[in-house]
Amino acid sequence: MSLEDRYLENEYYTQDEHGDYELYDLGDFELARGQTLRDAKLAYQTFGDLNDEKDNVILFPHMYSGTHRDMERFIGEDMAIDPTEYFVILPNQLGNGLSSSPHNTPPQDGGMGYFPEVMIEDDIRAQHELVTEEFGIDELQLVLGWSMGAQQTYEWIVRYPDMVKRAAPIAGTAKVTPHDQLFIEAHKEMIQSDPAWNDGFYTDPHAVLTGLRRHALIWSVMGLSTQFYHQSEQAWDQAGFQSVDDFMANFWEDWFLPMDPNNLLTMATKWQHGDVSRNTDGDLEAALGRVKAKVYVIPFEEDMFFPVRDCEYEQAMIPDSELRPIPSLWGHFTMFGVFDEDLEVIDEHIGELLNESV
Amino acid sequence: MSLEDRYLENEYYTQDEHGDYELYDLGDFELARGQTLRDAKLAYQTFGDLNDEKDNVILFPHMYSGTHRDMERFIGEDMAIDPTEYFVILPNQLGNGLSSSPHNTPPQDGGMGYFPEVMIEDDIRAQHELVTEEFGIDELQLVLGWSMGAQQTYEWIVRYPDMVKRAAPIAGTAKVTPHDQLFIEAHKEMIQSDPAWNDGFYTDPHAVLTGLRRHALIWSVMGLSTQFYHQSEQAWDQAGFQSVDDFMANFWEDWFLPMDPNNLLTMATKWQHGDVSRNTDGDLEAALGRVKAKVYVIPFEEDMFFPVRDCEYEQAMIPDSELRPIPSLWGHFTMFGVFDEDLEVIDEHIGELLNESV
Repeated sequence: MSLEDRYLENEYYTQDEHGDYELYDLGDFELARGQTLRDAKLAYQTFGDLNDEKDNVILFPHMYSGTHRDMERFIGEDMAIDPTEYFVILPNQLGNGLSSSPHNTPPQDGGMGYFPEVMIEDDIRAQHELVTEEFGIDELQLVLGWSMGAQQTYEWIVRYPDMVKRAAPIAGTAKVTPHDQLFIEAHKEMIQSDPAWNDGFYTDPHAVLTGLRRHALIWSVMGLSTQFYHQSEQAWDQAGFQSVDDFMANFWEDWFLPMDPNNLLTMATKWQHGDVSRNTDGDLEAALGRVKAKVYVIPFEEDMFFPVRDCEYEQAMIPDSELRPIPSLWGHFTMFGVFDEDLEVIDEHIGELLNESV
Repeated sequence: MSLEDRYLENEYYTQDEHGDYELYDLGDFELARGQTLRDAKLAYQTFGDLNDEKDNVILFPHMYSGTHRDMERFIGEDMAIDPTEYFVILPNQLGNGLSSSPHNTPPQDGGMGYFPEVMIEDDIRAQHELVTEEFGIDELQLVLGWSMGAQQTYEWIVRYPDMVKRAAPIAGTAKVTPHDQLFIEAHKEMIQSDPAWNDGFYTDPHAVLTGLRRHALIWSVMGLSTQFYHQSEQAWDQAGFQSVDDFMANFWEDWFLPMDPNNLLTMATKWQHGDVSRNTDGDLEAALGRVKAKVYVIPFEEDMFFPVRDCEYEQAMIPDSELRPIPSLWGHFTMFGVFDEDLEVIDEHIGELLNESV
């Protein structure tokens, strides 16, 4: 079962493209901002088997513009997240195109340009329902995620501190920074500036090509490090690209152009408002102070969205935590995994965290 | 005499706004890319008096979106650039709105959307003509500039190595980086995405408001440091702003919205192609190796356009040079001079450089 035929057909959001996944029925789901997502579905994929004690669970939400598929490369029998040992749940974000999203919800049911604003905590409440109601799980060995996955990880450990034993927020923050808010505003503008966007009511899934191309351009500016571009010939060659133009067309545009603009905007708005301190009346220190998990805060050096020091600022507020910065030329996109050695280093950190006795 | 009434009237580009300045007649000026700027004018302002030996000259070109006016705050009797001692020439960039520019050139004469692409070396050739032909000067004690002013400084010391005794390229590079090229592409898109831009043929000087507002937004993302926004309350308060919204409206939009979009695009294209190695068949090391001036390369820490290491990479190729990074929360906009202490530190470096015997 999937939502792929429910409204605007887009070949990107299909099981052909993303592999099998399941849908959990959230019913009429009330959102943090008061609106209701009717007949809401949470898409997810699992790896491995839930043991009888139900104590071998890892939850691994994904980043902006991603799906469960993008996290699969971190799961393997020779990796820290070993599916013969763990039961791994990969939830899809609300609005990501596989879960309930603008493009798969008809306008008359609140889709497309009518789709409500979703907050990070809505995803976490939906995932909590999946974990507890569908699987009867009350303990997570590890919650981890990259970028918006880190935002979700933080929300998990602040909202449900007794459920999570270990956590690894990677290249993301518990509270969005003003700088990131401006960046996200700029990249939303990139899409919305295209007249074809039409306030979210287009009928051709690929009508907003110019807006998506502009959106890819601004990602190319902030997504990687200046150092990556500085060492460009060497770094591109290693990544399989010939030039800036080739890199723009065959990396950034290749990634974003198949996607649905309203879906991206829904995720962007969520990112823009990510803030665990809504759990504690705006007191970030109080929010992070109640975390019980063992936490590795893992920023990437050269990350222009989430500089190491912004992550360190929050890490210092988390009782049982360590800062573990990873050097990489790719900046924020280190976790995209273009370089095998980056994946290996990330895997090592995850392995060490899983071996922490808590 | 000024060009302010020559085509599109825009109250921003007037002597009321910018104070008096002079116009040097370049005649029909052939540009690096082969086009001709007919009846071209170079606007400039001077401070102090040229001595009889004509050996007390400082040349101080300006940054993107600037005019001579923006450099005036670095000139004063109690400052390193003392007009009782030096003859200071502040040239205006071609395309900046006071010199020959898209908005002040009628379309039938090659203005507005027809305005040709201008390169940094065109400015430097024009300034060289002003300096040598108009004033009979053959030696400059100091050439300095910030950002695009640094690009012009580099072009001066590579193109006319025997004329310049000291140079201070501040927060800029001799060769544009691929990362900056992408950023500039993004901010050009911000303007050009506005249908009112109309390929450069608008008739109302403020028609392209939405494009300019988007352009201000992307500047707010890259122009300052993440750390500035992180310490936002304190830093804003010191700068006289209340919030992100207030800062956007009353700093960035206040700065850019009065300007002419074609003028900004002309300067942006120039920036995007800045490269002194065109003097040496693409060999940057050869270009910088021929510099004879004593050079202080002055990057700003936290600068997202011109990281210290990008500047250091070039500094290492300049024979008689020093790297002198300046710490500041404002990142690239340190030289905008919102904080007095930043201005003082910059002034100290300039003073030390002027005291170097060469």
